[in-house]
Amino acid sequence: MGRVTQRTKVTVVDVSAEQPVSRTRTDSVTVEEPLELRVGGTPLTVTMRTPGHDIDLVHGFLLTEGIIGDAADVTLARYCEGAVVSGESGFDENTYNVIDVTLAPGVAQPAPELARSFFTSSSCGVCGKASIEQLRARTRWPVRDDPTQWPAALIAALPEKLRAEQRSFDKTGGLHAAGLFGPGGELLAVREDVGRHNAVDKVLGWALLAGRLPAAGCVLMVSGRASFELTQKALMAGVPCLAAVSAPSSLAVETAADAGLTLAGFVRGSTLNVYSRGDRLRTT
Amino acid sequence: MGRVTQRTKVTVVDVSAEQPVSRTRTDSVTVEEPLELRVGGTPLTVTMRTPGHDIDLVHGFLLTEGIIGDAADVTLARYCEGAVVSGESGFDENTYNVIDVTLAPGVAQPAPELARSFFTSSSCGVCGKASIEQLRARTRWPVRDDPTQWPAALIAALPEKLRAEQRSFDKTGGLHAAGLFGPGGELLAVREDVGRHNAVDKVLGWALLAGRLPAAGCVLMVSGRASFELTQKALMAGVPCLAAVSAPSSLAVETAADAGLTLAGFVRGSTLNVYSRGDRLRTT
Repeated sequence: MGRVTQRTKVTVVDVSAEQPVSRTRTDSVTVEEPLELRVGGTPLTVTMRTPGHDIDLVHGFLLTEGIIGDAADVTLARYCEGAVVSGESGFDENTYNVIDVTLAPGVAQPAPELARSFFTSSSCGVCGKASIEQLRARTRWPVRDDPTQWPAALIAALPEKLRAEQRSFDKTGGLHAAGLFGPGGELLAVREDVGRHNAVDKVLGWALLAGRLPAAGCVLMVSGRASFELTQKALMAGVPCLAAVSAPSSLAVETAADAGLTLAGFVRGSTLNVYSRGDRLRTT
Repeated sequence: MGRVTQRTKVTVVDVSAEQPVSRTRTDSVTVEEPLELRVGGTPLTVTMRTPGHDIDLVHGFLLTEGIIGDAADVTLARYCEGAVVSGESGFDENTYNVIDVTLAPGVAQPAPELARSFFTSSSCGVCGKASIEQLRARTRWPVRDDPTQWPAALIAALPEKLRAEQRSFDKTGGLHAAGLFGPGGELLAVREDVGRHNAVDKVLGWALLAGRLPAAGCVLMVSGRASFELTQKALMAGVPCLAAVSAPSSLAVETAADAGLTLAGFVRGSTLNVYSRGDRLRTT
């Protein structure tokens, strides 16, 4: 539980010389394990994630899927005691890979995964437009009117702040990071995961549990690309700005424009690309 | 349909000077749209993908999920005619985002997504070990005894071959690529997608439809990281080597070692890291 990296044996081959050279050493790889989320004992979903901050993760997942909107909507979240494997010790060991969540009275039980999806409840005609419209209907805290403005240089400085946190524990090159920053660019929380969506769910789950939602004035910075899914997650947490080190997708751009979310991509070095609501970035 | 990139307006902000400079131009972003897969009219899954090669994608998905093992297992795959939106023209337009597949008689209808997952059919104790064991049981073409050997330099040269193909159409920085290479390092097919798993499904679906499976002697090269999911897909297609430009996860390494899959990571420049079955790489 909570192991972010694991040692493994690796053979490094260098083919630059005519006669390739190989040597064997130990190296760290990112731990990836399945996490099954159950709600009231019923399996809801399985995600491949890096162990650690699992309670944040399940809260963030339930939040960004529209199932909960407040920490009080969950009365209990715990590792399933029955989830055991026979360990090397000969005793059963909890895998810490199954979490059961009890929802508060009055919170609607989620439908099975497929039915819950933003997309499939459209009876026909799946398209980006339908996705955006359904997302809009589910957003608790519209960000359109968030009056926050940030100096462009503040956004440009966030990847370095994120990397400074990553350096302390990513030795593998295999972790995505997500960080939530306050209006002044101060780091509120950073989380890492083998899956980019999980890193975001972990950080937004943290915000939910910390009473920080809606995350008005905040910036969600991610180490990779900006997909539709990440804009969706930002919007479900009331975050008015999503910034990504890499490229956005077409549907991320359309969703951001539709919802009034500031979307920045290719935030690298001294430049950044702004795809929507650039009025929130001060350049003077 | 088939649009890989889309033009968008972007404001590029440069904060290197004391007074930030911004200019607006048009840029290309990767298209991301939902694809709903139905089997016999029943919705099975929705994936966010880049349009194009959708028929490859659905075949690859059904293959790597263990639902089909042969092109003849699918008698019909077509865009759902009812999947329309009201277009700007005023007429209904097919979204090309819903595909309905008809399975051949005798091919078992898939269970709903959650039940079908490799992980959740373990009644309790979700762990990596369970994942690997279930995968092993489902593999049609074990790769353990594939006798192919490749010069290490051949593997090291694959990222450049992949990039040469990407250059032709990825102007966005937002696409993952997957390529299938023959025993001599010859490119058989390359596919790109906003989702790494989709790029792999597309290339393996191509191989299925081209009668190339099991892909004995072949190398699957991916532009990103090597997760459990990608080792799973390689194994379901009988590919004996998975090579990745970036890091593998712990479960990818364990799965590869268990199944006898050659796994290479950090294939960059003149070096590569080999995590399992390095005996297939010739360095002499």
